[in-house]
Amino acid sequence: MQSNRDRIKEMIEHISTFNDADPGEGISRFSYSENDAKARKYLIDICEDIGLKVRVDAVGNVFARLVGTDESLPVVMSGSHIDSVKNGGRFDGLVGSIGALEAVRVMVEEGYQPKNSIDIVFFAEEEGSNFQVPVMGSKLLTGKLTVDDIKEIKNEAGITAYDMIKNAGYDPDNMPNDVIAPGTVKNMIELHIEQSVRLDKEGHTIGIISGIAGLNWITITLEGVQNHAGATPMFLRQDPMVAASKIIAEIDGIAKAINDTIVATVGYIEVTPNIPNAIPNGVKFVVDVRDIQQETIQQCVDEIKAVTEKYAKENDVKFTVEKTASSEAIKIQDYIKEVMVEQAEKLDLDYVLMPSGAVHDSNYMAEVTDVAMIFVPSVDGRSHVNEEYTDWDDIKAGVDLLLNTLVAISQ
Amino acid sequence: MQSNRDRIKEMIEHISTFNDADPGEGISRFSYSENDAKARKYLIDICEDIGLKVRVDAVGNVFARLVGTDESLPVVMSGSHIDSVKNGGRFDGLVGSIGALEAVRVMVEEGYQPKNSIDIVFFAEEEGSNFQVPVMGSKLLTGKLTVDDIKEIKNEAGITAYDMIKNAGYDPDNMPNDVIAPGTVKNMIELHIEQSVRLDKEGHTIGIISGIAGLNWITITLEGVQNHAGATPMFLRQDPMVAASKIIAEIDGIAKAINDTIVATVGYIEVTPNIPNAIPNGVKFVVDVRDIQQETIQQCVDEIKAVTEKYAKENDVKFTVEKTASSEAIKIQDYIKEVMVEQAEKLDLDYVLMPSGAVHDSNYMAEVTDVAMIFVPSVDGRSHVNEEYTDWDDIKAGVDLLLNTLVAISQ
Repeated sequence: MQSNRDRIKEMIEHISTFNDADPGEGISRFSYSENDAKARKYLIDICEDIGLKVRVDAVGNVFARLVGTDESLPVVMSGSHIDSVKNGGRFDGLVGSIGALEAVRVMVEEGYQPKNSIDIVFFAEEEGSNFQVPVMGSKLLTGKLTVDDIKEIKNEAGITAYDMIKNAGYDPDNMPNDVIAPGTVKNMIELHIEQSVRLDKEGHTIGIISGIAGLNWITITLEGVQNHAGATPMFLRQDPMVAASKIIAEIDGIAKAINDTIVATVGYIEVTPNIPNAIPNGVKFVVDVRDIQQETIQQCVDEIKAVTEKYAKENDVKFTVEKTASSEAIKIQDYIKEVMVEQAEKLDLDYVLMPSGAVHDSNYMAEVTDVAMIFVPSVDGRSHVNEEYTDWDDIKAGVDLLLNTLVAISQ
Repeated sequence: MQSNRDRIKEMIEHISTFNDADPGEGISRFSYSENDAKARKYLIDICEDIGLKVRVDAVGNVFARLVGTDESLPVVMSGSHIDSVKNGGRFDGLVGSIGALEAVRVMVEEGYQPKNSIDIVFFAEEEGSNFQVPVMGSKLLTGKLTVDDIKEIKNEAGITAYDMIKNAGYDPDNMPNDVIAPGTVKNMIELHIEQSVRLDKEGHTIGIISGIAGLNWITITLEGVQNHAGATPMFLRQDPMVAASKIIAEIDGIAKAINDTIVATVGYIEVTPNIPNAIPNGVKFVVDVRDIQQETIQQCVDEIKAVTEKYAKENDVKFTVEKTASSEAIKIQDYIKEVMVEQAEKLDLDYVLMPSGAVHDSNYMAEVTDVAMIFVPSVDGRSHVNEEYTDWDDIKAGVDLLLNTLVAISQ
């Protein structure tokens, strides 16, 4: 089966008209806003027109079901989110939402009735634009956030998530009844733009996600002795910047030596007092380590700790190494990867197996089901900006793979 | 000849009572304040009591002359400043000011009449506490700042340096007549606390300054490509932090390999956007390079440029290297070093030849005369704080060396 490129384009472009941003400033469509309601209505109308059974849960996650021949079986789920960051792009979330809708639309047109029911899902509040709490919709759906929690979460105006959801016409108190029970969903398959450079740089059309990276944030603090930069000879210094630079300089090589999927980044550094003519008293930095296996994350962290100890001692500075954030790596089951690879080959798509390093709704859906993801290229890796772009042919290719994968696992 | 330890202590402690800081909060005595006026009066009274000829210039620099047997000869000058930073210490500036006064006082008591006249000098506004313009008094005295300049310099309340000096009872318009003409001063010898750790850590009583360091500030800017820390594989990154760390990690070794006097410091770093989960777009840092020879400063800068180019290329990031500040190294003439070493040996003092890396009035006096400096230890290197301390025996040792050096070069 084949998706309809022009129809996908038309739907994504139509949704883009529901937009609070000024012209030329990208897309601002926050969950629970009027434009969000219009976008939902547009999608729900299409779903109902093609005969799907639509259900909206207590916090606004939308499910549109193509009923299968055996309703006792767990459902196959596919979709993404329809909200955006402030002044974001047209494709983030929408490609996976419209992609799932197009896939099911083709199934209906082709007269395909799956064995397992197929649920299209449009998650609410994925970007965290209202409350700076990302993936709120999928967290509520999987029970990682509760009704009590959203009574505590407030936006800048002091309005709670609970009240905003209620004001949008939902009944958040009923959410406990809508939480997904393990065993009721067979798979969650999410199509998404890559939001980084790899597919675009390497010229692949499709990324089949081999694993979703877990994360460790390691905060390293080095404490030396502040002194005058001009008046303190090199051999009498306890300079934490020297130690920090030698540690950071090793991290790149440590990660590259472990495997091809691990990444380690120092994006944040804080120097005290941070003036040119003083040897710093302190340097603090965060190493963001991610991989699709917990063991290699731990190996990388251990090696970073070892070089920290080495260079702290060599430069006579005190050090601490703390784990300040972490999430577990999520395994993509082999059987579902095999299905995707088989379908990609049948469709003659240029695909590559690659890790996913960012957070998507599927990361939370992994709590209750086997997840899988398909990436399509982001031109220049740009995302969350007006310039965000994915070639329509690439989007069609992604939807084709999604469509055929959904057919393969639902029959 | 020997100085009087208890008299030095008494004078320094008395001056410390002219203080605007709260008890226990160190010394706040800004030039042109009431307490500054009291401190000047105290010192001028002593100078006049012992028969010196006192002259105050148009901006408040004080000169007290022990007249020599040949008034046609250039004068020998010694002194320092009596102002402090906010909540500073008791010794910075005062050791050199009181030290010069004590030295001349002993000469008078011992009946020593020099051939060259000897001028004690108390510089005004060295710390820049009023206008954030350091060494203003010696800059005006040597013509590096003009009356027009000080009409432009304002404090936080908007009062110009010109007006503040005038309100304190001076006549700044007359300053052009008070600028020192080259050839009129034979030497300027300044005793000062070290304000760093070397003498204290190494247990020496005296530092004879072998040269006053010049400075280069090299600002290195690295521009890469900002990307998601989780979603961008290591081999596709253009990470300016990796390049920066490898450059900074080499600087310590570059400096140490050149000689024992050069210092190179990275105290300031700026990362954009400086968040843990983004590969930075840009990293900018400043390297502070100082040495007592221009050639080795240049060598160090050249080697830093070379490693910058190397690591920028290796990591595929753009770079710029700019000289953002500089001052020339000041040579201490061999003949005056030899006199100080000879006197230190006669006095059986534990001395070391060492560079000076900070800015003192002597750095500007070097424009018009051959300068020399003597350092005494700062306990734990602390300075500009209430804890600033130098052992009274060490101060006496410094004054003894100053006294005997002044005698040696003025006869």
